[in-house]
Amino acid sequence: MRATRGAELAPALRSLTAPDRVSTTPPDRLAYARDLWPRGMLGLKTGQAPAHPPDVVVWPTSTAEVQAIVRLAVENRVPIVPFGAGSGVCGGTLPLAGGMVVDLKRMRRLVNLDRASLTATFEAGILGEHLEHELARRGYTLGHFPSSIMCSTLGGWLAARSAGQCSTRYGKIEDMVRSVELVTGTGEVIDTTGSHGLGADFDQLLIGSEGTLGIFTRAVVAIRPAPEARILRGFSMPRVAAGCEAIRRVMQRGLRPSVVRLYDEIDTLMARSSAAKEEKAAAESEDPEERAVAGWLGLLGSEQGKRMRDGLRRRLVGAALGASVGRMRVLNRAADALLPRLSGGCLLIVGCEGDRPLAEAEARATFREIERAGGKDLGPGPGERWLRHRYDVSFKLSKMFQAGAFADTMEVAVSWDRLLDLYRAVREALAPLCFVMAHFSHAYADGCSIYFSFAAAAGDDQALAEERYDAIWRTALAASTSVGATISHHHGVGLSKAAYMPAEHGESMAIFRALKRVLDPHGILNPGKMGL
Amino acid sequence: MRATRGAELAPALRSLTAPDRVSTTPPDRLAYARDLWPRGMLGLKTGQAPAHPPDVVVWPTSTAEVQAIVRLAVENRVPIVPFGAGSGVCGGTLPLAGGMVVDLKRMRRLVNLDRASLTATFEAGILGEHLEHELARRGYTLGHFPSSIMCSTLGGWLAARSAGQCSTRYGKIEDMVRSVELVTGTGEVIDTTGSHGLGADFDQLLIGSEGTLGIFTRAVVAIRPAPEARILRGFSMPRVAAGCEAIRRVMQRGLRPSVVRLYDEIDTLMARSSAAKEEKAAAESEDPEERAVAGWLGLLGSEQGKRMRDGLRRRLVGAALGASVGRMRVLNRAADALLPRLSGGCLLIVGCEGDRPLAEAEARATFREIERAGGKDLGPGPGERWLRHRYDVSFKLSKMFQAGAFADTMEVAVSWDRLLDLYRAVREALAPLCFVMAHFSHAYADGCSIYFSFAAAAGDDQALAEERYDAIWRTALAASTSVGATISHHHGVGLSKAAYMPAEHGESMAIFRALKRVLDPHGILNPGKMGL
Repeated sequence: MRATRGAELAPALRSLTAPDRVSTTPPDRLAYARDLWPRGMLGLKTGQAPAHPPDVVVWPTSTAEVQAIVRLAVENRVPIVPFGAGSGVCGGTLPLAGGMVVDLKRMRRLVNLDRASLTATFEAGILGEHLEHELARRGYTLGHFPSSIMCSTLGGWLAARSAGQCSTRYGKIEDMVRSVELVTGTGEVIDTTGSHGLGADFDQLLIGSEGTLGIFTRAVVAIRPAPEARILRGFSMPRVAAGCEAIRRVMQRGLRPSVVRLYDEIDTLMARSSAAKEEKAAAESEDPEERAVAGWLGLLGSEQGKRMRDGLRRRLVGAALGASVGRMRVLNRAADALLPRLSGGCLLIVGCEGDRPLAEAEARATFREIERAGGKDLGPGPGERWLRHRYDVSFKLSKMFQAGAFADTMEVAVSWDRLLDLYRAVREALAPLCFVMAHFSHAYADGCSIYFSFAAAAGDDQALAEERYDAIWRTALAASTSVGATISHHHGVGLSKAAYMPAEHGESMAIFRALKRVLDPHGILNPGKMGL
Repeated sequence: MRATRGAELAPALRSLTAPDRVSTTPPDRLAYARDLWPRGMLGLKTGQAPAHPPDVVVWPTSTAEVQAIVRLAVENRVPIVPFGAGSGVCGGTLPLAGGMVVDLKRMRRLVNLDRASLTATFEAGILGEHLEHELARRGYTLGHFPSSIMCSTLGGWLAARSAGQCSTRYGKIEDMVRSVELVTGTGEVIDTTGSHGLGADFDQLLIGSEGTLGIFTRAVVAIRPAPEARILRGFSMPRVAAGCEAIRRVMQRGLRPSVVRLYDEIDTLMARSSAAKEEKAAAESEDPEERAVAGWLGLLGSEQGKRMRDGLRRRLVGAALGASVGRMRVLNRAADALLPRLSGGCLLIVGCEGDRPLAEAEARATFREIERAGGKDLGPGPGERWLRHRYDVSFKLSKMFQAGAFADTMEVAVSWDRLLDLYRAVREALAPLCFVMAHFSHAYADGCSIYFSFAAAAGDDQALAEERYDAIWRTALAASTSVGATISHHHGVGLSKAAYMPAEHGESMAIFRALKRVLDPHGILNPGKMGL
């Protein structure tokens, strides 16, 4: 591919779209030079310029404009990065080779609502929250609630196979899609409407291609009436293993809770401590709901217990962030020994929803199964609290990064028979390197995903930070693959996991490469991503 | 491709497999020259030899043998037709270019049962009934019950995207598969185990490829504990439209009945008349269940009513089979006018299953919804009767064909907003040509499939039979596509619908062709099928 010269295409792009929908200004180029991949944020403290700015940014408003933009890019062999809202955490939208960023956010219409068939057609650039709002005001929901819902788009969800917090009931985004429209790397439009009877299903190959095979412009999704009832409940599980066993039994009985989240001891402790701010006010509240929350938070009873927990949390986090690599393992071992006694067990949040009588029957069966596995009912408080805060970012990321620390998350998944092996292998492997906690969510009848959060620090030394960051990822992914886990569940591949594609897909990588040759023969679509 | 010379490969095949697992005898070649595509059976009466016998048949017992066979075929440019149990109805296993038939039926082992993750690994050649038996004796079920279960294999289900009679609850076969192993046209093995996190999902492209991209050798499927309770119920719906509305409401409330089958007036009449044999014995039975069935069959009450119905049925079928093309429309119009009064409405069979309390709650909600849409409860009898006979072939096919008549079925699907248009369009278009009846099954929240059965005759004139048969299909498919329906739901493409692939898939046919070039570069796999 020739050296990029996207900026020279600005006049042509303006005539294809509109003068005010094309930009080559430095602020815009900087703004589109990053996503939320933490590796790319390690330079924040030193104010380092982003490594990969695009030459030009364009905001199309129609499929026809996207086609015209792609054709212009093909003629000039200029790469394109399709862009939604930039909240990806794997570097999938970094413009490695300059060129154009095509931001879809102005394509955000609800094109059609079919009340008889319960489907909605949206343009791909609509923000998740707006999509839900459009549906909610008409009495419907998509049922897709990723924690990024305020800063991610339908197209981004499709690109990375997004999972929402209610995936146990409603599936991942790929389960909700009825058809897609996308513009390929030759400017052709593929529309899979009505093509799901004869032969293979192509949707599942386009979904998850992260802009390397085409640019999503529209999708038809299945919608549902907004649920009549939602029943949330917290349980205290004696250990992670008991919590996993409870979830497995629930899913394998064919129950469909909308929310299932099991926090390991340290994640439970973090959740409780961060809840402490609400606790005091709640304890004095006249609202019985809020007093219930306070009761849960005070489960261990004594003021002394609470002080110990808060102290441990502070020490752990502080130590982890400041610790030398050598001390980390000792700290983590100490935490492992203390946590089961101090955390009061593992918190499990469960929710059922839908028609009231059915949701109630499902909740009864679900809760009974959890109690059989050793769960202690904490009432609705913890679930309600989770619901209020479900889009909060757990870590104050930019603050952390400015302080010379860093954090990231890894979502891996495996079948039930190896789930605890996966949990232990990753924690064990990371013990010398960082502070780790985990929760279990997105459960299935045959397996479950684990969401690991880790944090470490390297002060002002950016090279050291990068070295530690990379070592943590290398170690965590090796531990995951050693037990046969898939190393991505819903964050996508992007740059960060691209090198692992051939190992995970084996011979079927040939399928992906063949598709790339056909759908993007000039290699202009998101080059350098997904191991292509 | 060179003229086939599969027979010459027999000695090599014997040394790759075993002497008694290769055949070039005329009976075997004839046996593998046909499947259950009715078009291929029109010559039965005249004893015409099958048009497309294979040169050689081979029965491998392992994936390694399949690989060796494929490599031999590649070296010699001899085509391969993968074969399960030969019950396909679209000509998908006809060896158009001679060559080898590779029959997978000796690869029939349960390889692994993972009780923790509730998955089972089977070799692809296992017969459906044996697969269910292997699971049932261990307390599990796959939940896949196509009417062909006695004469179809797991590999065949995967090849054609099979749907079972409980698909509303458990999905189609493609929803039950966790991973597949297949041998490509170069002899490579693709195993998708553990490859479902990073990037696109390739399973959904291999499933439904009908032997054109590879030969399925194994699959991992999700299994379930055998249901604790099954609740079946029949309803009489005043009209087809009310029945469809009932099903739509049930599915869109998120209910998951395991069985939903709505028969149109004429299909209801056929079902009732064929049930008459059981009726007399049942009316005198001491079993209250059986008396309930009798009560349902006598719903219209009088002996006179029953005689009228039986008479109409005989006249309709007789007339349809013997009628000239000109008289057919008149007969169908008369039937349309009489049927609503004589059939006693449309029969709707519904079943719920799973854990007892949940199945009961789901059944209550489901039945209430159906009654709201105008359904009259007929008790459990009709559902129990359907269950006893669910694998019966509705038409005595070979008898019919020998008598100079022919029959076929067409399963099409569309979204709810156009479902009645589809029903009317096909019936209207076929009215001059044949006897038509239909039932609605395989319902979803966003749409439903219609299963049309048609019958006509042409006496001893095979050319006329072929002409009429082709005219019926052309007409029915044109009517279906005119309302935007997909023209296959679960029978596959094979030969009969191959010509429609480009129209249904549009630009994405390029994807399929690219895959063919990569996975079967020598074009040896099932040539001439699926429009490739």
